[in-house]
Amino acid sequence: MIREGERLDDLGINGYRILQDPRRFCFGMDAVLLSGFAVVRDGSRVLDLGSGTGILPILLEAKTGALHLTGLELQEESADMSRRSVKLNGLEEKIDIVTGDIKEADRLFAAASFDVITSNPPYMIGGHGQKSDNEAKMIARHEIACSFDDVARVSARLLVSGGKLFLVHRPFRLAELMVTLTGHRLEPKRIRFVYPHLEDEPNIVLIEAVKDGKSRVTVEKPLIVYGDDGDYTSEIYEIYKMPDYRRDGFG
Amino acid sequence: MIREGERLDDLGINGYRILQDPRRFCFGMDAVLLSGFAVVRDGSRVLDLGSGTGILPILLEAKTGALHLTGLELQEESADMSRRSVKLNGLEEKIDIVTGDIKEADRLFAAASFDVITSNPPYMIGGHGQKSDNEAKMIARHEIACSFDDVARVSARLLVSGGKLFLVHRPFRLAELMVTLTGHRLEPKRIRFVYPHLEDEPNIVLIEAVKDGKSRVTVEKPLIVYGDDGDYTSEIYEIYKMPDYRRDGFG
Repeated sequence: MIREGERLDDLGINGYRILQDPRRFCFGMDAVLLSGFAVVRDGSRVLDLGSGTGILPILLEAKTGALHLTGLELQEESADMSRRSVKLNGLEEKIDIVTGDIKEADRLFAAASFDVITSNPPYMIGGHGQKSDNEAKMIARHEIACSFDDVARVSARLLVSGGKLFLVHRPFRLAELMVTLTGHRLEPKRIRFVYPHLEDEPNIVLIEAVKDGKSRVTVEKPLIVYGDDGDYTSEIYEIYKMPDYRRDGFG
Repeated sequence: MIREGERLDDLGINGYRILQDPRRFCFGMDAVLLSGFAVVRDGSRVLDLGSGTGILPILLEAKTGALHLTGLELQEESADMSRRSVKLNGLEEKIDIVTGDIKEADRLFAAASFDVITSNPPYMIGGHGQKSDNEAKMIARHEIACSFDDVARVSARLLVSGGKLFLVHRPFRLAELMVTLTGHRLEPKRIRFVYPHLEDEPNIVLIEAVKDGKSRVTVEKPLIVYGDDGDYTSEIYEIYKMPDYRRDGFG
């Protein structure tokens, strides 16, 4: 089940583990914060767009009463690792991993067939910003294979009315995200900024948008990652709920 | 110069004073924070849309090297108080107060005739939220006389390309503000949330938008109003720069 170069990490919840490959893309704080931000009601059908090694479906299976979770991932090597992680955790009945393109998600799945969609999409625009040294990381980080408009468009098609989209993204794209979401009738309802320290600009934004929701946003209290002592704040420890995780485990 | 029921408050900067009438609308923390957030280059032509008792033009005259400042105010009683405050401070050469409607600002002034526009517009939608007990306060707080779309539309007409709009508003309208601004080619470039305490949701948002700017936002570090000791934080004291101000002076 574990191939050369891969490692098996303990997720610290339900005894679940996940396969990762440091040569490809390991999950980071983004994914864990999104799993803590997402509100998934019991019985929900959940889709994760661009699920990488399957971290979101696996964490949400552990943390919520979701009925069923699907991870859609473009890169077959990542999807294959996800499927093996699902099997290692005995979750084949609860989690499906589908290899496919976000841009075509509205053809792969029926309209209005999900209550919740999560996504940690590529956040860099086209070829901008720091390039990764390999294609797997490039596709995960840069909008090469899909744009944010693709994510919003297919989410709007696949969510039931009143269904929720939970996103993790970068604050520098905030205005564009708001415009694109509302343009697809995904109304931003809850926003939380993540600040490395209280004296920093936020480097992560968490967004909840509701299909066909009314226009009114709650901006939540700041989520501060590091305290004055240089250690994680208690809220970060609580979201992780993983005593095994140390700073170098956050990716 | 001072009529019955009015009071003359020291602004604590340049020896400037301002007439206010507690039966009408006194300026609050919103206006002072906006005066600290706005960046006004030397020689700028500045317009304040909905200037109430003239607090923004007077504070910006003291704090910046603006060439000339204009306050546009719908309510004649407030405009009249503003003009008397301008005269009391000897600023008739620098500040004009115009009585008029924001909706018609693009007819009152020439297109592209301002480098900077500031506005602390009514933030409650129509008849929603808590009603004020008198019409003067209602018009200042509720979108009765003008909508946010009006503010954005006339600002886009009156600013030069690259000119800056500085706004103070409420976070619950964030998504709508982003959509409306970008719809008028006013690109949000800088956003700062104001949190009463670190553990609270923000209740104020400060926004800088640039006419014809590119899409990229900087969300700044949180502005916290009260420290753990219940006193103002040092940053708030610095923005006010007014030792005479105490909590009950903030409106």
